[in-house]
Order: sequence, then structure tokens, then C-alpha cells
Amino acid sequence: MKLSGRIFDDRSLVREYVSIIRSVEEKVVVIAGGGTTARSYIEAARELGAGNYLLDVIGIEASRLNAWLMIAGLGEDVYPKPAESLGELLTALGHKRRVVMGGLQPGQSTATVAALAAEAVGARALINCANIDGIYDDDPRRNPNAKRIPTIRASELAAILRSSALPGTYELADPWSLEILRRSKIPMYIIDGRRPGLLLDVLRGGVAPGSLVLPE
Amino acid sequence: MKLSGRIFDDRSLVREYVSIIRSVEEKVVVIAGGGTTARSYIEAARELGAGNYLLDVIGIEASRLNAWLMIAGLGEDVYPKPAESLGELLTALGHKRRVVMGGLQPGQSTATVAALAAEAVGARALINCANIDGIYDDDPRRNPNAKRIPTIRASELAAILRSSALPGTYELADPWSLEILRRSKIPMYIIDGRRPGLLLDVLRGGVAPGSLVLPE
Amino acid sequence: MKLSGRIFDDRSLVREYVSIIRSVEEKVVVIAGGGTTARSYIEAARELGAGNYLLDVIGIEASRLNAWLMIAGLGEDVYPKPAESLGELLTALGHKRRVVMGGLQPGQSTATVAALAAEAVGARALINCANIDGIYDDDPRRNPNAKRIPTIRASELAAILRSSALPGTYELADPWSLEILRRSKIPMYIIDGRRPGLLLDVLRGGVAPGSLVLPE
Amino acid sequence: MKLSGRIFDDRSLVREYVSIIRSVEEKVVVIAGGGTTARSYIEAARELGAGNYLLDVIGIEASRLNAWLMIAGLGEDVYPKPAESLGELLTALGHKRRVVMGGLQPGQSTATVAALAAEAVGARALINCANIDGIYDDDPRRNPNAKRIPTIRASELAAILRSSALPGTYELADPWSLEILRRSKIPMYIIDGRRPGLLLDVLRGGVAPGSLVLPE
Amino acid sequence: MKLSGRIFDDRSLVREYVSIIRSVEEKVVVIAGGGTTARSYIEAARELGAGNYLLDVIGIEASRLNAWLMIAGLGEDVYPKPAESLGELLTALGHKRRVVMGGLQPGQSTATVAALAAEAVGARALINCANIDGIYDDDPRRNPNAKRIPTIRASELAAILRSSALPGTYELADPWSLEILRRSKIPMYIIDGRRPGLLLDVLRGGVAPGSLVLPE
Amino acid sequence: MKLSGRIFDDRSLVREYVSIIRSVEEKVVVIAGGGTTARSYIEAARELGAGNYLLDVIGIEASRLNAWLMIAGLGEDVYPKPAESLGELLTALGHKRRVVMGGLQPGQSTATVAALAAEAVGARALINCANIDGIYDDDPRRNPNAKRIPTIRASELAAILRSSALPGTYELADPWSLEILRRSKIPMYIIDGRRPGLLLDVLRGGVAPGSLVLPE
Repeated sequence: MKLSGRIFDDRSLVREYVSIIRSVEEKVVVIAGGGTTARSYIEAARELGAGNYLLDVIGIEASRLNAWLMIAGLGEDVYPKPAESLGELLTALGHKRRVVMGGLQPGQSTATVAALAAEAVGARALINCANIDGIYDDDPRRNPNAKRIPTIRASELAAILRSSALPGTYELADPWSLEILRRSKIPMYIIDGRRPGLLLDVLRGGVAPGSLVLPE
Repeated sequence: MKLSGRIFDDRSLVREYVSIIRSVEEKVVVIAGGGTTARSYIEAARELGAGNYLLDVIGIEASRLNAWLMIAGLGEDVYPKPAESLGELLTALGHKRRVVMGGLQPGQSTATVAALAAEAVGARALINCANIDGIYDDDPRRNPNAKRIPTIRASELAAILRSSALPGTYELADPWSLEILRRSKIPMYIIDGRRPGLLLDVLRGGVAPGSLVLPE
Repeated sequence: MKLSGRIFDDRSLVREYVSIIRSVEEKVVVIAGGGTTARSYIEAARELGAGNYLLDVIGIEASRLNAWLMIAGLGEDVYPKPAESLGELLTALGHKRRVVMGGLQPGQSTATVAALAAEAVGARALINCANIDGIYDDDPRRNPNAKRIPTIRASELAAILRSSALPGTYELADPWSLEILRRSKIPMYIIDGRRPGLLLDVLRGGVAPGSLVLPE
Repeated sequence: MKLSGRIFDDRSLVREYVSIIRSVEEKVVVIAGGGTTARSYIEAARELGAGNYLLDVIGIEASRLNAWLMIAGLGEDVYPKPAESLGELLTALGHKRRVVMGGLQPGQSTATVAALAAEAVGARALINCANIDGIYDDDPRRNPNAKRIPTIRASELAAILRSSALPGTYELADPWSLEILRRSKIPMYIIDGRRPGLLLDVLRGGVAPGSLVLPE
Repeated sequence: MKLSGRIFDDRSLVREYVSIIRSVEEKVVVIAGGGTTARSYIEAARELGAGNYLLDVIGIEASRLNAWLMIAGLGEDVYPKPAESLGELLTALGHKRRVVMGGLQPGQSTATVAALAAEAVGARALINCANIDGIYDDDPRRNPNAKRIPTIRASELAAILRSSALPGTYELADPWSLEILRRSKIPMYIIDGRRPGLLLDVLRGGVAPGSLVLPE
Repeated sequence: MKLSGRIFDDRSLVREYVSIIRSVEEKVVVIAGGGTTARSYIEAARELGAGNYLLDVIGIEASRLNAWLMIAGLGEDVYPKPAESLGELLTALGHKRRVVMGGLQPGQSTATVAALAAEAVGARALINCANIDGIYDDDPRRNPNAKRIPTIRASELAAILRSSALPGTYELADPWSLEILRRSKIPMYIIDGRRPGLLLDVLRGGVAPGSLVLPE
């Protein structure tokens, strides 16, 4: 059960994730983010005068294109299309071990989709393969002394998000994804998506450098 | 464009709303809340051990039952079923003047659905027929001196919601719905849903007692 | 394979049925009736001037809400939504052991839905958990000497239904459902839905007090 | 609003009906029967050992093939596919003047589909273009003195159907179609489908030889 | 994996194919052609003035009716409806061993559908049960010395098709289907569909009289 | 009615096409090609080992992303999503003046989709805004004396395509698109997609430099 962020912009990362997921015996749901394709199309649509509804729809469609790419890599033992609703996700998991999906609805981050999917399927945890290696106590790009926080409560993270003090944090989680995780008691591991090996460590129950968000 | 809250628990209120909506010439989208039916079924499902995903789905289905009731009242000039996605809403409005919908997805209030629908159809404003007559500066049930706030910024309302100081306010709006309204610059009128005549006043462009939430 | 009547009005009955169905190894299809929710919404819609088509649709939606409640109780090993057509029922049974459904179409009782579902899946028998403990030779509410008929032919029951002599009997079966049972040679057990233990007896192949309708 | 019976077996009849329907300004819903194609495929499926559910599905698919043929003839101003549910019928009529459909569900005659469709769209009357020119007081094929009944109550017709005294009558109506017509007060004209000109007479409000079934 | 041509016009052939397919342990996808039913309805639609789009749609619907007939014969261990897209085919094969389909889209022969389906499911070969026993070096109906070609390259067959020298060949394959087979390296066996026993020989890996089209 | 090729790679071209289409009063169907996005994702999927079916699906999804971009630009008077089948195209055109679509099915070029769509809606002509300004009698990139052919028969163009003498021509049309155009007598204008003004000239009935393919 894991969330993939911008890894779709680097085709060799996609290949590594594909081979890790294929090696996993358990049920796996992959939520694909939109990455560069999404940003590029959203920008073009904004220039054409599109409103927020359509911008979000286009971002969702781009994330589904990334989902198709992962399906193409996973081969036979995967549900043969991106699930487009939580209901379809549940039906798909009824007969397939692996399901890939992108975004679901305007006004919703893929972080929220991942939390909702984890809740719907009763996942024990959500693994967030992000474009940073965890949550910091200050902006690591500016402050070289910023330290990664190994464990943090969702309520504390929500407060940090509101203060907007740490740019980039918002891509890791937003208030609604945290609320879903809290209400259903699902912990979230944030690990560096640029290092696929970390996912394997977490899946094997081991310890990986990153941040653990407790659903409290 | 308006949101109906608990009015479905009182059949005579439903009748009054039906006759008001029928008198409106413009396009109208009605979002029905779940009311008592939703609460009763959600409670029963919780006792059966259901998780949050299913509880939310059941609340959505109950709000759609309320939507069917309003469709039954509106007669011929209405899209003949509740729209079940924003895409279906847009297609439906392409050939029908009136569309009714309930909830859309787990993890989402009907307040958020109303904001998303207003954004998708490009509505000028969202009218929230609530189970209270506006936003107060203190809990009106405890403090008889609490005063209704006639105009408030969405950002201020979001801060009030976070402080949780005012119970019941959460049913009027949640942070997510406010963010949608802000990003698409849609003001929201909060009026007393128990007094259908107020809706008519607002629709006619007049002034009605309540609170206006500015998308700032 | 069984039909549940008004049991949804009593939450503790629902819980008992859930635990019985969970204990069954065989494939099970549950058809949920609309109960009090259906009656209440249909009455409200009738007051709003709705025609028979919409009244029936609303009854179907209410029965599906009851179906969702049962799904919520059955947990993981159930098709994750009410089947909405006989085709969906067959597809669902292809990979899930348990499927729940409500009504299907206007102009059709849930008794008929149960008969059609039994026919489509090739069920050996239909168990009707009713709001009475069987078929009587006179109205048991008026005549204290009325006797329960342990075995009756469908053709005889159809004649009784036509004579309308026994109020309430119509909820057990209607001519259409009896015709389906006859043409596909499916016997129907009528047992008292207020006593869930009887269902267990019948499922185990034992004898339970009630009425057996022979498909002749 | 009318029901077409076996006319699909005679291509020149289809052509005449197409030109009549094209000449009508009002909204028209056509329900196509299965005719010879349905009978031939049902017989083949029965020989292969299919149960009643599949036999009925095959009859429905055959009637939809006939519906496609009529759509092919009606050209541009028709909903571009057979409606497959009452809900789709209503949505289709929201933007198209003419809709064609075949059967809907196993266990249901096209006579019942026609009655349900008439009820759903609020039709004033149902015109049944049958393979006989009306209802007789005796079997006209055996008794040369049998007389056509110009007007009959639905309740009387239901009694005749039950007595099974008049073979062939069953194709005109069955108890469930009559019950739908009665509850929604929809009269049914039975005219000879082999004489398309009669349909034109009825549509123009004139008198045509046949039988009128009163919804009483 | 095989394509059935006109065999649906002969009910006893259908029965033989059903029993052969039931005896196969492997996954099987059957593509049903339209046969006489398709030709008869297409001709009727053409007389009514329908354009090529509708003529093709009607042919597809007729082939699906044939698919239903085969489903009716195959009984329980088959996907319970014709797959209507390649995506549905893949989902269906995820939990059922046998899937039947007819045509997919206007402007496409069932030969092409068979090639696309073989490609989508990763079939090792396509077996074409045709209305002729193979490809000849001249028209066998005119030239008694014409010889069946046991093995031919797809590129050569495409050239023969273009030259139009051999009437009837076009029903075996068209340029599009051959291109699909070539790009995905799928060989096609052409055998005489009027002799179902040949299919059994090929499925068992044996040799059968016919023509083998190499994907070169 | 027109086909857009690689114009989606140049955002300013998209903007110009949007404003031209908005200025047209007639019904317009736009078929969007996949462009660079399609090629990039297809290449990535091929490296992951995907077969031709999935490569084509990914190309179709990419073309739909381009279709969404055009929908975003066209604003309110457009069907609010890409049509995903010819049937949906026809339903959409029943109540909206403008419909955008991408690819439809594996094994099919967008040139073929454009021809099928033109046939289904009964278009008088197909305008192909290509990445070249017409058909040449030799490869214009190698031979500076190559001349553009102002008018050519589809049969002649098909012969040129088969000879493969002119690289790049294949993107303009393939044998199947030409066959559809011929059977339904639809002429195709090929104009330079990099010069949107030409489209306006053709739509106004004027003459534009390019090639006209006659459906013969």
C-alpha cells in the first residue's frame, strides 16, 4: 500500500518500483501522482482560461496516464485499468492482488486519495514515497542544520501545514488526508521516493530513514 | 444554487422548497444532505462494526434518497435521477434546468460537495440553507448575548472552525469546502433552512437575515 | 439464498442475520426489503404528487440502503455494493461468495426480485424470512382457530392471493414471483423473519415451523 | 406511445411504421417485440440446455436487435440506441423526441415493458399494435361467430387471461401489464399491427377498429 | 482462443462447439461472427436507408446475439455476458476461464476483433474456424485443381487479399487483422468450421488439415 | 469536423484552434491526436516490456488528455468530457454543438477514428489538420522538386501508402481510414496543421493550399 509522487518523471525509477511491487506477495494498491505531465497540462489549460474544476480534472487524467504506465510494467497480475472510484477499487481487489489508481475527484490531492484508499481497503499502513526524505523541523533547503523528524503526530503535522512555515511539506500531506488517517487510525511512513530500495525495507517490516506520522 | 441541510426531516419544508425551486427560471443545482435517515443508518452500521469508508458510503446513499424525494417533487423539468459525479452534473445541466444530487464520495461533507458543484458549473454564489440562521460570535445555545455575524471572510471562518469553539458550526462549512470557495471566488450565503421564504428573498437578489461568507 | 422482509426495522435482528450468514459456507444471495424507510419516503413522495414510477424507484433506493447496511455488517467477504441488475449479480457471484441486493425495477415486488435472482443463479430453494410465520387457512389476526398450512402448491397460493381473502399474504408472494418459481421449479420456504434461528435450521437442512410452497 | 408486436418479421411493415412515426410531431416511445428472431434463438438456447433466465435474456437481446432496426429507419431525430432501463428512457426523452426500446429484464413480457414505460413517461395512453385486431369473446380461429369486444375493463380482461379460455390473448397483455395500467390509469388501445394505417388513425385522435382496455 | 464464423447458422454445429469448449481446461476466448442473422438485419436496415455506421452496429449486435447463444450453452463456467470491449475482456478473464464476445466497433471485421483479442490477452495463437477449409492458390469453386496452401506468410496473404483474385478469402482475414497478428507475432490456424472435430485436434496440439498463417 | 495532429505539442497552436472553433456556428467534432505525450509514454511503456495492446491503450489515453485540454479551452458550449465511443459521440451531439474525442480502441490510428466519427455523424467532409501541408509526389524532405498533389483519389493514395515510398505519409491516412471514407463517400481535406488560419478558410467554404482526397 503506497503512494508514488513525482517518480513518474524518471522512467528508471518507475522500472525499479515495478520490480519491487512484483516481488511483493501481499495485496498492493498503488496511487500514482501526476508529476510533470500534470503540471504541464494544467499550466496549458490555465492559459486557455480553464477554471479550477477543469484544471483538477486534467491533473487527475494525467495521474491516470501515470497509472497506466505502471500497469503496463506490472504485466499480468494487475487489475487491467486504473480504478476510477473507491467502489471500483474494492471490486478490483476482490479478484486481483494489485490495483493501480490515479486521482479521483477535483478538489482532492493524491495524498487524500491514498488515505481514502487505505481506509476503504482496511490497510494497516500507508507508505508515502515522496520527493523528499521526510518531515523536517525547518526548511532543509535553506537551513543546513534542519533535522528530519523521525516520528510525528498527525495533529502536529497538521499544525505545521497550517503555519505554512515549511514550503514543500504540503505535497507530503494536506489537512484532509491527515484527518482521514486519524479517524481510521492508519499510520503513514514518509520515505524518499527517489530511493526505491527504501520501500522494500519498509515492506519487509524493517526500518528505513524517513518520518512516521502517527494517526493521533 | 443551494444546499439543503436537515430540511428533509420535515416533509412540509420539503414541499415548500419544491414550490420555490419550481418558481425559479434560472438553472438550479440542489445538494441534499442526509439528515436523520443518514444518522440513523450510520449509527446502525457502526454498531455492526463497519469502518469509516462504509459509514460514509451509507451517509451518501441516504442523502441520495433525499435527493430522490426532491426529484419526485420537482416533477418533469428536472434531471430524472441524482447526479452521482461532477461529470454527470455537467452533462445533466447541458439539457435540463434543474439537477439534484446528494453526496459524492467518502471523506467529504455535503458542504464540500456543494462547493465543488458550484465551482464545476461556474455558479455565482452558493446558498446554504442550514439548520441555524447564520454564524455567531459565540455559541447561541449557551450565550443569549451571542450575535450573528452578517459578513465574514472564509479565512476567518476557517480559523473559527479550527478552534472548535463553536459546536455545530462544523455543519455549516468545513475547511475543505471553504478552500474550494476561496480558490474559485464563490461567496456563500448562510440562511436559516427552516424558513424557506428566505431562499426566495436571496434568489430574487434581495437581502435576507443570515451570514455572508466572502471568498477571501 | 433468502429474502429478508421487514427485519431491517429492528437493528438487533439485522445483527443476528449478519452473524448467521457469516457462518454459512455456501454461496448466499440476500434480497433486502424496504421496510419502514421505504414506506416513509414513499408516503412523503406521494404527498409531493409523485407518480407510481417514482414511488417505486424510491422504494427500490430505500431497499438498497438496507442492502448497504447488511453489506456493512458482512465485512470483507461480500460483494462491496448492492447488485443493481441480475447481470451484475451473476458477475459478482463469479468471484464473491455473498451478494446483497435490494429492488431492481419499478412495478416489481422484492418477492419477485428474490424469485428472479434464485432463477438466475440456479438456486435450489428460496427462503423467505417474512413478517409472519407462514401461510394460514384464515386470517390469524381475526380468527384464533386459523391454522398454518405446512405445505401448499404455488398454484393454490396464487388462487388465495387472487381471492384477497387473507390480508398480508400479498407481502409473502405475488402472482409474478410464484410464476417465476413455478417455471424454474424452485421451492420457497416461508419462515418467521423475527426468529433468525429458523433460518439457520433451514440452511442446515433441518425442519423449521413455517410453510413450504411447492413449485407446482 | 405504442407497442409493436411481430411486425418486425415483415420488413415492409417496419418501413410503413417508420414513415408513420416520422410524421408524428409528438414525443413517441416505441417498444419493439422479439418476433421470429427471438423465438428462433430461444429455441436454440433451450436445446443447448439453458435455463429460463438465459432464455429470457436472449429474447430481450433479440427485441433490442429489432429496436436497432427501427432506429436505423428513423434516422437522425431518434435517441441513437435502444434505451436499456426506464431511467435511460427518461434521460433520453429529455433531449430527443423519439426513443426505441426492446425488453428490459427476465421474467417480463414486452407488454409489461410498454406499460412501465407509459407509466414512467406519463403517457396518456398505450397503443398496442398486436398480431390480432382486438379482444374477442371467443377464439376467432375456431368460432366464426366470435365477436370483437370494442371496450373492456382491465379487470375483466385479467379474468379472461386467468381462465386461459382464449389462446393468443396472452400476447396482448398479461396480468402484470394490466396491473400497471390500472394503478396509473392508462388506457390501452389494441389495434391490428398488420395494418399500420390504424396507428395513424389512433394517433390523430380518430376511431379505429380494435379494442379499448379501460384502466379499471 | 478461436474465431467462429457462420457456424451459428447451424444449431447442431453450435452444440458440438459447446461440448468441445467445455472439455478444454485452458482459458478460452470465443469470438462469434454474425452469420445469417447479421446479413438479414443489415439488408433490412439498408433498405430503410441506414448508413454504414448503423449497418455495422446492427451486425455487431447480431454477433452478440450469437455470443449469448454460446454463453447459454456453456453454462456456469463462463463470463455471464458478451464482453463489449477489450478492457472488459481482460477484466472478465481475471476471474473466469471462458469469455465469449461478438463484434466491438463499426468499421471492423470480427476477424480483426479476434486478432485484437488475441493480442490483448497474450494468446499464443488464433484459431479461425472458417466457412472454408483453408487458403487456396486459386478459387476452389471454379478451379477443381486449386490446391490448399498449408502454410503462408501474412504478408503474402495480404497481397492476395489486395489482388481480390480469390472471392471469399476476405472473410478469412482482412489487412487490418493481418497487421495486428504480424505486429504481435501471433500465428493463425484456419480450419474448416463445419468440422468441429478439427478444433479439438488443433487444441490438443495435433495437426489438422487447413492453412497456417505465419505472422511474418 | 476535423482532425488535429501534433498541434497539441505547441500550446499557442491549441489556443488559435480554440478560438477558431468557438467562432464556428455549425456542429463540430474534434479528434485529438496523441502528439509528443503519447510518444513519450509509449516509449516508456515499451521499455517496461508492455505489449502492443497496452502501448495502444496508453496512446489513446494520451490523446484523451489532449482532448481534455481542448475542452478546457472551449469553455461552456462543449460536451464536458471526451467522447469514448461512437455511441457516446452521437448521444453527445444530440444536445451539444461541439464534441472532442481522442482515440477509441487499440489497433486503430486517430485517422481511422476521425473517419469513423465523420461517418457516424454523417459529416459532409473531414478536415485533416496535419503536420505537413499535403500529399507530395515525392518525399519533400529529400527532393526539393517534389510537388504537392492538389487532388488525389483515395484508391491512389492507398496505393502510395502500400508502396511505402513516402515516409510520413502514413500519419496522414492509413488504408482503413481511406476505406471508411470511400464506403461512405466522405472527402478529406489535408491542410497544414501548423497554420490554423487554413482551417478557417476551409470552414468558410473557401480554397486553401493542401490536398483534397476524393472518396473514390
